[in-house]
Amino acid sequence: MTGAIAFKTPKPEILARRDTIISDLGGLLPTDCLIHEARELVPFETDAFLAYTRVPLAVCLPETTEQVARVLAYCHENGIPVVPRGAGTSLSGGAIGQEDAIILGLSRMNRILDIDLPNRAAVVQAGVTNIAISEAVKPEGFFYAPDPSSQLACTIGGNIGMNSGGAHCLKYGVTTNNLMGVKLVLTDGTVIELGGKALDAAGLDLLALVCGSEGQFGIITEATVRLLASPEGARPVLFGFPTSESAGACVTDIIAAGIIPVAIEFMDKPAIEICEAFAKAGYPLDAGALLIIEVEGSEDEMEAMLARIIAIAETHGVMAIRRCQSATEAALIWKGRKSAFGATGRIADYICMDGTVPLSQLSHVLKKTSEITDRYGLRVANVFHAGDGNMHPLILYNINDPEDAARAEEAGAEILKLCVDAGGCLTGEHGVGIEKRDLMRHQYGEADLRQQMAVRAAFDAEWMLNPSKVFPLEGRDD
Amino acid sequence: MTGAIAFKTPKPEILARRDTIISDLGGLLPTDCLIHEARELVPFETDAFLAYTRVPLAVCLPETTEQVARVLAYCHENGIPVVPRGAGTSLSGGAIGQEDAIILGLSRMNRILDIDLPNRAAVVQAGVTNIAISEAVKPEGFFYAPDPSSQLACTIGGNIGMNSGGAHCLKYGVTTNNLMGVKLVLTDGTVIELGGKALDAAGLDLLALVCGSEGQFGIITEATVRLLASPEGARPVLFGFPTSESAGACVTDIIAAGIIPVAIEFMDKPAIEICEAFAKAGYPLDAGALLIIEVEGSEDEMEAMLARIIAIAETHGVMAIRRCQSATEAALIWKGRKSAFGATGRIADYICMDGTVPLSQLSHVLKKTSEITDRYGLRVANVFHAGDGNMHPLILYNINDPEDAARAEEAGAEILKLCVDAGGCLTGEHGVGIEKRDLMRHQYGEADLRQQMAVRAAFDAEWMLNPSKVFPLEGRDD
Repeated sequence: MTGAIAFKTPKPEILARRDTIISDLGGLLPTDCLIHEARELVPFETDAFLAYTRVPLAVCLPETTEQVARVLAYCHENGIPVVPRGAGTSLSGGAIGQEDAIILGLSRMNRILDIDLPNRAAVVQAGVTNIAISEAVKPEGFFYAPDPSSQLACTIGGNIGMNSGGAHCLKYGVTTNNLMGVKLVLTDGTVIELGGKALDAAGLDLLALVCGSEGQFGIITEATVRLLASPEGARPVLFGFPTSESAGACVTDIIAAGIIPVAIEFMDKPAIEICEAFAKAGYPLDAGALLIIEVEGSEDEMEAMLARIIAIAETHGVMAIRRCQSATEAALIWKGRKSAFGATGRIADYICMDGTVPLSQLSHVLKKTSEITDRYGLRVANVFHAGDGNMHPLILYNINDPEDAARAEEAGAEILKLCVDAGGCLTGEHGVGIEKRDLMRHQYGEADLRQQMAVRAAFDAEWMLNPSKVFPLEGRDD
Repeated sequence: MTGAIAFKTPKPEILARRDTIISDLGGLLPTDCLIHEARELVPFETDAFLAYTRVPLAVCLPETTEQVARVLAYCHENGIPVVPRGAGTSLSGGAIGQEDAIILGLSRMNRILDIDLPNRAAVVQAGVTNIAISEAVKPEGFFYAPDPSSQLACTIGGNIGMNSGGAHCLKYGVTTNNLMGVKLVLTDGTVIELGGKALDAAGLDLLALVCGSEGQFGIITEATVRLLASPEGARPVLFGFPTSESAGACVTDIIAAGIIPVAIEFMDKPAIEICEAFAKAGYPLDAGALLIIEVEGSEDEMEAMLARIIAIAETHGVMAIRRCQSATEAALIWKGRKSAFGATGRIADYICMDGTVPLSQLSHVLKKTSEITDRYGLRVANVFHAGDGNMHPLILYNINDPEDAARAEEAGAEILKLCVDAGGCLTGEHGVGIEKRDLMRHQYGEADLRQQMAVRAAFDAEWMLNPSKVFPLEGRDD
């Protein structure tokens, strides 16, 4: 990769004190909770935004809120930056550290503390995986709604940091809509609690503010999340269209008609080929684009909604409609979709964009995206949450060819600007991280950014938490 | 009333410059947009929290965002507090001014600017009434979901300031769940935009933060709100129970079973009598408590959900179940509920509490509430959004009897503390205002409050916006 995105310059005075810091941290944590040897630090060099790597000073893996508070208080006193990390599945580089920073990993805080069905809530530690919550309550007929494709690995703390979404968020909302409370350790080690098991909270909605703050406001150690009752039935249906434009226009019309299925997922021809080769899900290889639309409820409810959707799809020249005949087939359809990024990684390196656009702009933005990648001589596969307008063009390139990598990065930036100019925004669910940090000026004016940075500074005046992320380095107060 | 709640002391230097300030403001606004004569200020002395009155220095009624910005910039330069006001329907005193402050009313900015059905969004000025949005899109089969009982009068700007709810928020969420963007004038007159027509936004979720910030972060002049498709059908059903406890336990069990009707409204015996006398809605006068449960969808969907609800109600000794036979009857049932506060006002003065509790605590809190009001020798009527756990005990008293008023205020405080101690919070949808300001210390520790105030100060360092509200006066930085 070009490395066009800069990190903050490591502080020489921190680097010089490396041995002392490691020794001090060792005194604050159980022996096996501190990692500092070069070869052991390798797994923490990057996250799922593979184009950038930075070796951190050390990695702390605390087991309790108290240990987190102790480490933060120490780093605060000693001016040491801290980068929080869940499972390291960030697609925007949100969990990449830097040479003068501690990575504070929550992976060992992975216990479900309380399942409270009467209040439809679960209290979990931040390092619990997303899927573990749904699995724990599935026997009772409940689930936790947000379902990122990485849900087998990604943690609830990371989901909150990035306000993660997923395929089923069209109906159920993203993390912020399913989060009831957090325990947050502030930068100086103070522990506060936001929200809880009751609706809303008096005072400011700091919970919503912290959700999506990308680890810059404190370290979340516990979360209270909303549990929903599982639907009576659910069924993904495949719709093949001649072109991306016709599939996009169909999505626009479904939503404009006021129909909200559980999920409307989009794949263009390259994505269909890549995913089918991997998952053998039975996707229609002759279609120019595919929609996976999931409906749920009773048989009658599903059929009623499907009938309305099919009527709209027919006005857009739908070529093929395939209902799945069994739970196995349904699981396979979702497996193909959810492993799209992994399947793409088998054939090329890629960067995944995350721009979100108003639904009326879907077809327009799809067309322009392909014009942009054509102009750069790059291949692109589109696989995304169409019902939300949340687009994921995967730009394919060769990570070992610096020129190709530079082209991919430039094309990606142009696509994100296109989304903003179409009335959308830079990121729907993957966060700003380092990836989109310098594009924030394209979305926001100076007054907007200044106000956001003032709020951030109200939590962390010295910019010690995840310092290189989210806000352009120039123009900061730190 | 006792006047136990203090306002900030008016600044003598502002009072001394009153004439100059009025003359200056006159130069910033069209002639009929400034109110300053004593008798014309009377309607602005209080809001729906009638127990307190304060005559403001002047009232500005700007017609454009530019005029709002001009007035704010002037007040900022001259250290003059500003209290924003929509329709003045606040139940927590959020729109009450003070002697050294300008009231900035948005009532003249009442135009719907854009209805964008493909993107399911409406852009409206802040002074548009809540009901006007739904009425504008009803012919096309859409609606705006949050429905405060005051929806005929209250404005969308005020709804955002208080993060208002309503009967149908059990299914559809409160204001923050239905808000897509705002235009916000900051205290120095800078205009920023938060959110828009696309899902989410890059950077911090300042939109969620501003929603519910009670006018302390800036003046909202425009809002983009989400439109939803109207259901195929909807039907309120009355369930009469022998006691409040049995009705409360039924609500807990419905929600614990994962059933989410559109609305579950609760009335105890005093509330039933008061509302029936006013609305003649056919409420069962022999019941100890009543639930109004609304289901929606197709006939089959409604019947399926009702069957499950009835089965649960039968385990709690339900005495009467009445389905309405016509749209007129349905409207009457809702009229009785939505005019509960007005109907109560016909027989006595009242203060309306707004504590919210985890659903498993409903019966317990209802029982304790009646013990508290018995102890103070006060009458109480309970009419509230039970499905959300959002309780509204109306404490009846005589506003002209200072001792009675003091008792009512004390009993109210005790009830709110009870809600907090049961794992709930001080306010579900009415805001903190002045009413619950001094109780914030019961809900929050020092570190929590300090963090909230730091965020507030990031928007308004001099505490010029709505200064006496939300945060206890002691311990502030201003």
